[in-house]
Amino acid sequence: MDQPLILVTNDDGMFAPGIKALVEVASKFGEVVVIAPDSPQSGQGHAITITKPLRLNKVDAFPGVLAYECSGTPVDCVKLAKSVILNGRKIDLCVSGINHGSNASINIIYSGTMSAAMEASVEGIPSIGFSYLDYSFEAEFDASKYYAEVIIQFTLQNGFGDAKLLNVNIPKLPLNEIKGIKVCHQAEGNWTEEFIESKDPRGESYYWMTGEFFLESQDEDSDIWALRNGYVSIVPSMHDLTHYSALGSLKPLENVSHEFATKE
Amino acid sequence: MDQPLILVTNDDGMFAPGIKALVEVASKFGEVVVIAPDSPQSGQGHAITITKPLRLNKVDAFPGVLAYECSGTPVDCVKLAKSVILNGRKIDLCVSGINHGSNASINIIYSGTMSAAMEASVEGIPSIGFSYLDYSFEAEFDASKYYAEVIIQFTLQNGFGDAKLLNVNIPKLPLNEIKGIKVCHQAEGNWTEEFIESKDPRGESYYWMTGEFFLESQDEDSDIWALRNGYVSIVPSMHDLTHYSALGSLKPLENVSHEFATKE
Repeated sequence: MDQPLILVTNDDGMFAPGIKALVEVASKFGEVVVIAPDSPQSGQGHAITITKPLRLNKVDAFPGVLAYECSGTPVDCVKLAKSVILNGRKIDLCVSGINHGSNASINIIYSGTMSAAMEASVEGIPSIGFSYLDYSFEAEFDASKYYAEVIIQFTLQNGFGDAKLLNVNIPKLPLNEIKGIKVCHQAEGNWTEEFIESKDPRGESYYWMTGEFFLESQDEDSDIWALRNGYVSIVPSMHDLTHYSALGSLKPLENVSHEFATKE
Repeated sequence: MDQPLILVTNDDGMFAPGIKALVEVASKFGEVVVIAPDSPQSGQGHAITITKPLRLNKVDAFPGVLAYECSGTPVDCVKLAKSVILNGRKIDLCVSGINHGSNASINIIYSGTMSAAMEASVEGIPSIGFSYLDYSFEAEFDASKYYAEVIIQFTLQNGFGDAKLLNVNIPKLPLNEIKGIKVCHQAEGNWTEEFIESKDPRGESYYWMTGEFFLESQDEDSDIWALRNGYVSIVPSMHDLTHYSALGSLKPLENVSHEFATKE
């Protein structure tokens, strides 16, 4: 493939160090076009904007790289890039991130970074979301850039196997302490919320979400295990949410409806 | 089970006829508590609110039923209901909807209705999202109510099999023309966007999303096939997005990283 077209996006906006790192890496491999939300969109999940219009502004964010800010969600960004900015052109790869903070385990469903990547994959574009387990905007991205380069190079050369979407998380460790890559499944876990209840200046109650991650399984094939043991985790992910192994156990529902229907 | 506790929610807000229909059905089976967003939240996907506080207001929406409006997303609603309103109580079932419009196929990932239901299931609560293939607020909910009752009764008595989450869609047909229930997988499809570009009163461009659903597969075990052929579709769904069958094909990535790492 000569000069692949690579779409770079994120959920933290154009000034996040993580997207700068990813633009630098992607630029080694082909033509890069960047689109990012014009405000932080962490936790936006797969939200799309349907009840109001979107704005799109060309910005001079990275030397020599076509870049746009968009007023919408990360998923809106990908849709606008595909349909408006790159209308008709084949996008060879979409990379999202590098996110400031983990998108391992259940975080994938809340994550704007991963939802942008998933949207691209839904639309047929091989796509990778990268996340680094350090929330700080002063984070050191050397190890993340190294592994982003390894993974982008491998996937451009070899494809994605049977997958269209990869969820890559990089542990908060110096490059020489990372043990390598593990291809994993998503660990089972969830967030247990606490809501801090407080009063506003008018005396009205408000609630502010906080939470703690609760890991349900620790098995060695999971992304959380890999990250806690010094590996970069890669989870091939998909947008078909069907619980296939549960189909059989629900078949009796088909008969119930029939009994009901014929009873009437 | 005597007097199960049923949480009812949606993404269209408290004044949508669909939630009224669902409250009426759920009230036949147990104690109902309702929480709904205070503004329409269609297309909000799995968005959560982390950068601003949430408001929660008790409202007198349904006679004799405890009901709250929340300023957040559908997922926020479920989290607040569980952690604040019903703090410590076991919720036996969460039902979301009845949505005005389809959540079959890929719509599940954009849908506020289904994301609310999925959030409950992530937190261990058996959960069902109901959607009716009629966008109108004047829609006739008789068939939807009938099937919601059949399915809630069955699942309260028999459980969910191996699933925790059901995506139920009801075709836009009179009750006596619906052929019954099909337990299905999610059809493969996506939305092809068009953005209507226009100018605001100041002459600045804006883009408004519109789109057309493109169905990629028509197989008889899919939800879209069932709906187009007069059946209620039930897709057992899950939040583990791992593409398990792709794990093997990506294993070579583990070696590549090792080669790189040892080359340094």
